[in-house]
Amino acid sequence: MPVNRRGFLAAGVAAGLLTHWENTVTFAENLDPTNLIKANIPTPALLVDLEAFESNVKSMAEHCRKSGRGFRPHAKTHKCPEIAKRQMAAGALGICAATVPEAEALVAAGITGVLLTSPIVEPAKIARMIALVKREKTTMLSVGHPLEIELLSQAAAAAGVDVDVLVDVDIGDRRTGILPGQPALELAQFIAKHKRLHIRGVQSYAGHASHVVGWEAREKSSREAMGKSVATRELLNKSGFDADILSGGSTGTYNIDSTIDGVTELQVGSYVFMDIDYRRIGGKTSGENYSDFQHSLTVLATVVNATHPDRVSVDAGTKALDTTTNWKPEAKGWPGLNYNRGGDEFGILTLEPGAKLPRIGDRIEFIVPHCDPNVSLYDRIYATRGDKVEAIWPIAARREARTT
Amino acid sequence: MPVNRRGFLAAGVAAGLLTHWENTVTFAENLDPTNLIKANIPTPALLVDLEAFESNVKSMAEHCRKSGRGFRPHAKTHKCPEIAKRQMAAGALGICAATVPEAEALVAAGITGVLLTSPIVEPAKIARMIALVKREKTTMLSVGHPLEIELLSQAAAAAGVDVDVLVDVDIGDRRTGILPGQPALELAQFIAKHKRLHIRGVQSYAGHASHVVGWEAREKSSREAMGKSVATRELLNKSGFDADILSGGSTGTYNIDSTIDGVTELQVGSYVFMDIDYRRIGGKTSGENYSDFQHSLTVLATVVNATHPDRVSVDAGTKALDTTTNWKPEAKGWPGLNYNRGGDEFGILTLEPGAKLPRIGDRIEFIVPHCDPNVSLYDRIYATRGDKVEAIWPIAARREARTT
Repeated sequence: MPVNRRGFLAAGVAAGLLTHWENTVTFAENLDPTNLIKANIPTPALLVDLEAFESNVKSMAEHCRKSGRGFRPHAKTHKCPEIAKRQMAAGALGICAATVPEAEALVAAGITGVLLTSPIVEPAKIARMIALVKREKTTMLSVGHPLEIELLSQAAAAAGVDVDVLVDVDIGDRRTGILPGQPALELAQFIAKHKRLHIRGVQSYAGHASHVVGWEAREKSSREAMGKSVATRELLNKSGFDADILSGGSTGTYNIDSTIDGVTELQVGSYVFMDIDYRRIGGKTSGENYSDFQHSLTVLATVVNATHPDRVSVDAGTKALDTTTNWKPEAKGWPGLNYNRGGDEFGILTLEPGAKLPRIGDRIEFIVPHCDPNVSLYDRIYATRGDKVEAIWPIAARREARTT
Repeated sequence: MPVNRRGFLAAGVAAGLLTHWENTVTFAENLDPTNLIKANIPTPALLVDLEAFESNVKSMAEHCRKSGRGFRPHAKTHKCPEIAKRQMAAGALGICAATVPEAEALVAAGITGVLLTSPIVEPAKIARMIALVKREKTTMLSVGHPLEIELLSQAAAAAGVDVDVLVDVDIGDRRTGILPGQPALELAQFIAKHKRLHIRGVQSYAGHASHVVGWEAREKSSREAMGKSVATRELLNKSGFDADILSGGSTGTYNIDSTIDGVTELQVGSYVFMDIDYRRIGGKTSGENYSDFQHSLTVLATVVNATHPDRVSVDAGTKALDTTTNWKPEAKGWPGLNYNRGGDEFGILTLEPGAKLPRIGDRIEFIVPHCDPNVSLYDRIYATRGDKVEAIWPIAARREARTT
């Protein structure tokens, strides 16, 4: 039986979809990246909504200014020098980095006051950090163990550079740093034995506090944790060190930590993007939904299959949408649509009663469950304003550790 | 109280660790990548053990040769042209790609017989695939919906090229393709209306069968699914189409599908690396552990914190070790060590009774739970033989969709 398109439609295969497609697809338009619009960004893609993003950047900067605190935002969230530059322009003291490649990308982009917040004990990475300090002397490291200190000291001496360090104090996360109080003081005294190393203060991250649900419970948790760091800094200063800095805090505790005496700067990260993981912790005044900052980050996907009446497939699976938390991606502007994992390459969208499925070729933006690892899946962020792509920002600090 | 290193040790802070470090660390040796050894690869890093890998590549090729079947291995697993080349040298008919950037990287590397297995409905991506077909005419696409066919036909006509396609048949995964039997035949007839498009056969992926635990249950599941595809191919051939190819199968069902009459080639992927997800499905003769192929892929990490007696931190967290399955990474050669997620940047290792914790600076290789998304986190694979790095292979097909 020969079929033409109408015959195919008459056969009932995907009839409504084809009709829809005939009305909406225009071929090969606007492929020039200088004329890119949201509708023709190749998917899956990472998008930042500039209006929401700019509002978040401004809002955090204003809070810190009013609170009389500095802020050194964390690049582990965005890995993007273009974003770091905007944070600096808003008044940041510098930018935190979780990895050596992040620190390298930031310094290469001209960022001052870069602070490596993670411990490193690989000689080659220590050498790379020393090279950065040589290039930009405001670059700092956090240290929490004599091995880091010895390696850093050897490399600094060999290169003839002085290195500023913060003592990384473990206030409950139990994953990096030295214990507060006497152990931290002894580590500081050990650092003082190495003349190229200079203590500038203390760093503490209370990751266990940042996601506590309910503002009051979170306040209690963060105050308890940060209190140990405040006391440690005081101990250091009493013992003759110039521990000017106490760097810590998170997007979840920014308006808690900025009221704690002794905390000098906030290492906030997720506030630029926000995610579902943070929204659910509740705000100081906004109840269940933490709404101090807006969702600016989404993953854009295309519906690529609509064979079944109860589901469609999108081209964003495990490799494109982070699903390492318990929360699911949320389809923006499509009420009643549920995202389910469909393997590495696909997501499956199903419906709540009364909701309507998208059609093949439709494009959907998903609010991400957890921004940091989601960004890390991509090489670039499409910065959009309304329907337009205003810029494409390289996620330059995404790249893994280099060999040289 | 002034302290020197001995004083610090006497204070009991990390005493054993420092001693250990003094004996083992040599600074800045072998940083030249041409002289790279396993001990100085920057971490976290993705490693492939060449002996295990080569054995896997050979073993699958031999199985297919003996079974009289072709194989078109799937690049979604490795995204690495260097690996594709070795699969081609072992006799592969071509290489499958899940995304347009994968197909582009493969063709750029000189691979023939590239088959895009996923549907695409974005005009720009269709145009990119047509450009690839123009460059290498053995490049094929799978199609499962009239929208794909119309877009492809328009682009092929505009470029003046002929395009080979497989009909993508949905045999139970419910995420891509057209339904088997009459709907697939009607789609084939619709394709035949477009003179630049040429049907070469049928593609079916039974992802729901590939991970069924227990060989007999898996055999039943795969035979049932693939049977639908075999029947559809027969229907197409009876109806006058030249459906020479039936492409399907997986690492989990390779020795099942290669015995099904009508299956002409296997789209095996994970066999080059193996992972924990596949090991647990059980083998035909090897019982609970599927051991037809060896674990060749690991993530190398460094212990960066050892403050607590019951745990250490490694520098491989959510961004470096895929944890989207229920299985945990396994520390190679460290019995009794448990990997726990410690956030985006860190993993926390804890102990089973009687086991021994590694020390700060120690390096540990982890067998990965799920190879495909884990590879996708990295830009390169360090190919090692014993303690030596023999090559660094770019994961060139990792990059996301381009804009031009």
